Amino acid sequence: MTISTEQFDVCDLAAPGVRELTPYQPGKPIEELEREYGLSDVIKLASNENPLGPSPDALTAIRDNLAELSRYPDGNGFILKQALCNHFDLDAAQITLGNGSNDVLELIARAFVTPDNEVVFSQHAFAVYPLVTRAIGARAVVTPARAGGHDLEAILGAITDRTRLVFIANPNNPTGTWLTRAALQAFLEQVPPHVLVVLDEAYYEYAADPATGIADYPDGLQWLATFPNLIVTRTFSKAYGLAGLRIGYAVSHPEVADYLNRVRQPFNVNHLALAAVSAALTDTAHLQRGIALNVRGLQQYYQAFDQRGLDYFPSAGNFVTVRVGPAAEINEQLLRRGIIVRPVANYDLPEHLRISIGSEKENRRCIDALDEILQAGE
Amino acid sequence: MTISTEQFDVCDLAAPGVRELTPYQPGKPIEELEREYGLSDVIKLASNENPLGPSPDALTAIRDNLAELSRYPDGNGFILKQALCNHFDLDAAQITLGNGSNDVLELIARAFVTPDNEVVFSQHAFAVYPLVTRAIGARAVVTPARAGGHDLEAILGAITDRTRLVFIANPNNPTGTWLTRAALQAFLEQVPPHVLVVLDEAYYEYAADPATGIADYPDGLQWLATFPNLIVTRTFSKAYGLAGLRIGYAVSHPEVADYLNRVRQPFNVNHLALAAVSAALTDTAHLQRGIALNVRGLQQYYQAFDQRGLDYFPSAGNFVTVRVGPAAEINEQLLRRGIIVRPVANYDLPEHLRISIGSEKENRRCIDALDEILQAGE
Repeated sequence: MTISTEQFDVCDLAAPGVRELTPYQPGKPIEELEREYGLSDVIKLASNENPLGPSPDALTAIRDNLAELSRYPDGNGFILKQALCNHFDLDAAQITLGNGSNDVLELIARAFVTPDNEVVFSQHAFAVYPLVTRAIGARAVVTPARAGGHDLEAILGAITDRTRLVFIANPNNPTGTWLTRAALQAFLEQVPPHVLVVLDEAYYEYAADPATGIADYPDGLQWLATFPNLIVTRTFSKAYGLAGLRIGYAVSHPEVADYLNRVRQPFNVNHLALAAVSAALTDTAHLQRGIALNVRGLQQYYQAFDQRGLDYFPSAGNFVTVRVGPAAEINEQLLRRGIIVRPVANYDLPEHLRISIGSEKENRRCIDALDEILQAGE
Repeated sequence: MTISTEQFDVCDLAAPGVRELTPYQPGKPIEELEREYGLSDVIKLASNENPLGPSPDALTAIRDNLAELSRYPDGNGFILKQALCNHFDLDAAQITLGNGSNDVLELIARAFVTPDNEVVFSQHAFAVYPLVTRAIGARAVVTPARAGGHDLEAILGAITDRTRLVFIANPNNPTGTWLTRAALQAFLEQVPPHVLVVLDEAYYEYAADPATGIADYPDGLQWLATFPNLIVTRTFSKAYGLAGLRIGYAVSHPEVADYLNRVRQPFNVNHLALAAVSAALTDTAHLQRGIALNVRGLQQYYQAFDQRGLDYFPSAGNFVTVRVGPAAEINEQLLRRGIIVRPVANYDLPEHLRISIGSEKENRRCIDALDEILQAGE
């Protein structure tokens, strides 16, 4: 098609916050690397996906629901909300379903933040927080990190009369750091009531596992009865292995959920996602297998990094962020070997790479490639 | 879970436009009616879905892609954009993919409209236009309809310096009315360059069919080379029978698409939708069968309405809106008989019902039920 070359200043028409927006840079898809580099057998350890994939029950539910695809999904997500209520002891009125938890994070900003407001979050925090803030034209206030994680004192100190939202990730992506129950409780007690606190628990299942998780890692849902300004977000993209289907949710005070649901697109969650997750929730054995695989994988990397004397952030998630020095160059060398990890220079960590935990074989291939590259550079 | 009853004025925290928002009312899902009324064998003719369902090729593509579900979808939609480019002679830089066209309509408003702007659309136009406008806190300017459809003169007259966006649906939902090529061309020539025109072609395939469609119905894509302020939106929820998967798109000037893609969530379209649509696009035989079924169904209703002397809007879509008088009461009687249609009082049409074209048998059941109800009321 011929495209008009007529004078057209679309930049003047864009909303002010949108003019300055740089889109989120996703992990390179496997097919893209294969196309660009002429490779096959590429492995992707870049987007914190579950190497085991989803529960077979989820796949069965999808196959069983293919006949319904011409119908709009249930905009209220009745069956899934019932399943979540049973699983977590919630009230359906507390739940907001999202097209991934990215959708929920954006809904929160759009429902509560105006261009006059400020949104506070930490250095090294998830890239979607500044994106949703700037899209509205609100001011993003970034507090310095402490040991790679959130400095809750600094966040409290940054709250003003204009602050409407604080984003806290526990554990944090991309550093894998976490906040203890006591630290978060003390923080929540001090946040003034005109500020909503979003506790992003995308990696909750890994951190909360009774056997292998973090001993004093808190379940954010426990505080909802005490703090009406708290919103907990979770996803089925990580431990549940359903990133491709796009589904996450927020749990909050019902009045907060009411506003989120007003802004929510009526059919934001697709029918197969609703069906798959309703089935996946009860397959705890599969979830456990993924968590156990992740713990072994983390140990594989920790051991390798310790042997080479590489610094890394001990992680409560399904990824580990390691200081390799010339990260851009090493990333390029990994790509040439068919291994996709995540450079995190855009997270103020120019010497680090974030590596998602894969299968034992994928981890081994990544560690061997890193060894080869680092030795050649010595 | 116990919910906090602490004093909490969440309304004060909500963004001004959001406080007044009433969510979109979707058509009642079949399961909901069956639960509420204790019915089985319910039919739904309420959401303009395709009774034939999607192409079998789409279902095959979904099954073939189930092994990829733990991976994030390709955020750039590379393969699908290639398929759209081949199908419609487009440049990939013109395309913005959405989680249904609802998502695209919202992205357009969020990228270009601020609380200081006005958005113009017609009475009886799609409910999502005022929703996305009000969520931003912008002013919705509604022009009176002419014969159920858009009055383009009135829309031009309503444009001010503050206007940033005009929504035009062709054909219009819920009335099924359409605008001719000549009328739209004249309109586009008169719209000032500070105003973006969204041409919503959700029902394009029905109206554009060479054999059975509307003779002077225009293809909006033809104007993109001439009018850089034009955005055409389409969906796979209607003629392609994939409403449950959520996928639609916008085609525009590449600079407009660039801004839309900045606001777009990076993974807004799920992996199965990308795969299914890439496959469905080439199955034109299936698409044709659905269009032919729709034409026969429209005739079924027209004939029945003519026989009873009921007024209706001749329709270019896969639905027909008929004046039945006491629509709320008749709708209730239809529900009791297990038939879901759409009351359109919220569209300023309190005496009408919108009926989606179903299979011949479903149409027959609906017509017979209407006959029974109307006769009993005489």
